[in-house]
Amino acid sequence: MPEIRQDPTTREWVIIATERAKRPHEFASLPRRSGQADRSSCVFCPGNEKQTTPEVWRLERNGQWRIRVVPNKFPALTREANGSYHETPPFYRSIDGFGYHEVIIETPGHDHVLPYMTEPELFDVLLAYRHRYQALRVDPRVKLVLIFKNHGERAGTSIAHPHSQVIATPVIPLHIRRKYDVAVQHYDDTGRSLYREIVVAEDRAGQRVVHRSNQFLVFAPYASRFPFETWIAPFRHSASFGNVTDEELQELAHVLRDTLRSLHEALHDPDFNLIILTAPVEDESKAYFLWHVEIIPRLTTPAGFELGSGMQVNPCVPEEAAQFLRTVLH
Amino acid sequence: MPEIRQDPTTREWVIIATERAKRPHEFASLPRRSGQADRSSCVFCPGNEKQTTPEVWRLERNGQWRIRVVPNKFPALTREANGSYHETPPFYRSIDGFGYHEVIIETPGHDHVLPYMTEPELFDVLLAYRHRYQALRVDPRVKLVLIFKNHGERAGTSIAHPHSQVIATPVIPLHIRRKYDVAVQHYDDTGRSLYREIVVAEDRAGQRVVHRSNQFLVFAPYASRFPFETWIAPFRHSASFGNVTDEELQELAHVLRDTLRSLHEALHDPDFNLIILTAPVEDESKAYFLWHVEIIPRLTTPAGFELGSGMQVNPCVPEEAAQFLRTVLH
Repeated sequence: MPEIRQDPTTREWVIIATERAKRPHEFASLPRRSGQADRSSCVFCPGNEKQTTPEVWRLERNGQWRIRVVPNKFPALTREANGSYHETPPFYRSIDGFGYHEVIIETPGHDHVLPYMTEPELFDVLLAYRHRYQALRVDPRVKLVLIFKNHGERAGTSIAHPHSQVIATPVIPLHIRRKYDVAVQHYDDTGRSLYREIVVAEDRAGQRVVHRSNQFLVFAPYASRFPFETWIAPFRHSASFGNVTDEELQELAHVLRDTLRSLHEALHDPDFNLIILTAPVEDESKAYFLWHVEIIPRLTTPAGFELGSGMQVNPCVPEEAAQFLRTVLH
Repeated sequence: MPEIRQDPTTREWVIIATERAKRPHEFASLPRRSGQADRSSCVFCPGNEKQTTPEVWRLERNGQWRIRVVPNKFPALTREANGSYHETPPFYRSIDGFGYHEVIIETPGHDHVLPYMTEPELFDVLLAYRHRYQALRVDPRVKLVLIFKNHGERAGTSIAHPHSQVIATPVIPLHIRRKYDVAVQHYDDTGRSLYREIVVAEDRAGQRVVHRSNQFLVFAPYASRFPFETWIAPFRHSASFGNVTDEELQELAHVLRDTLRSLHEALHDPDFNLIILTAPVEDESKAYFLWHVEIIPRLTTPAGFELGSGMQVNPCVPEEAAQFLRTVLH
């Protein structure tokens, strides 16, 4: 059973993922490149449906599945755990590793990666994201639903077939709590949403804007932690991705397609992570947070300084990254 | 000039390292493997001393240099900046990128990596660490001195010749501030040092202990964020690495040698980061913190979940990692 342990020196939770665990000696022989199955043996490809864990949801178009959602075979957290808290005095705390960990198979096409998808295909992926958010947030033990995608080996993928993941946690991670607290403080101080103010200010200033549509702004954040870090944020204020409308998803599919293509072209098919940042479930309807998409190309390797200080060193000026992406787009 | 920008959504500082910067289009052609110079063209090798930036310190043995310290040619932070604060209302803050960034060339031997060094050689490296700490902490603008080493490509090395680095920052990074605050709170609550209590409790429990000597405990922390994360902490209470004695460094060299060798053997020469965690300069003489060494083998790739939530997923149980390392040692 997985276990969530609290680091007593930071109070951050760490998932000890026993379902994903290797025996210690196996770490010695870890391949430097992860073994990605080819098409013939890929369990996510059509024809091999019985080799996955039992499907929890599917989206069909013309009688064929377009998207399948299955529980992760090696989950970081599992619904079999009960989520009870344990204390080992004087300072160790743990939680039974309750949670959900699902895989969203984005397409039947083994090589049909996100940056090549059409707008309708991306819309379907986003529909699946929203569906799984709404399905998992119903469990009262779930505190946060995090949807993310790892594209390429440097971004942590171990399976080539295009897929996203959802992890629902029984705690609010410290990093999210902190982001949330900062937003609440700003609201208490000013009566306004920090994120909305950032989006409006960035839209007006323009120098970090990559792209804009009626409903979304694509921009490089002022303090980008990574080269070409790119955020997509809605103009309409809403704390939770769970409340996104069909119309917004339609436009997001369009904007996402442009953004992924420009990154793909500018950086020659970079590995990247895509993350849906959203408020904790209990705060979905409050005014503080703003859901948004963060895309993080994996071009640099965080090293000892970043691990020790928590400060990122970004060798790319955000204004220059935005300008370059604008050039590619137009 | 580098710039330190504050992320308004987390209040964490990010270094925009313009001295290390590439033009945006250059990120497209970044080699997946970093180009490591071979022996003949290595600027850190004996004979090429004139190709480095001017030396700021050296340690000699028998009339030959054993260790050289030079300013980083592409510094994340630079002493040429003045460290002044700037505000762009309503929420953007930055600091001119003042700081120090030095390279400690650990040995004349191009291939003589840390895990192969003898105890006297490691002692010299540790002497250099302490010397640079003490030299940089004197500048009243310096708030934290972070000493670290990146071993291998997955740990962020770009130069093969064995070297460590020192970065002195004009701010206390949020992660360090948080760790420090947690320790202060524990002291306020209990009158005791959190870190000292952890060391004593781990020593007594034993299941996460890798090794112990008279003055140091080597252990896998309870909430290890990474497989085989290993801490070396002194039994004598001292907040700052700057106050470490010659006698302690001598024993640390011995313990470090055993620890590096066991990791090397158990994991077949893993890439790793080594970090000296120490109190902010202004808190060196206070009772709250305990300096210690963290060694982090780079065996897994943090992906979208870790980037989005800040929670690490560790597929290795700390007790099993410690047990495996004990077996290798004995």
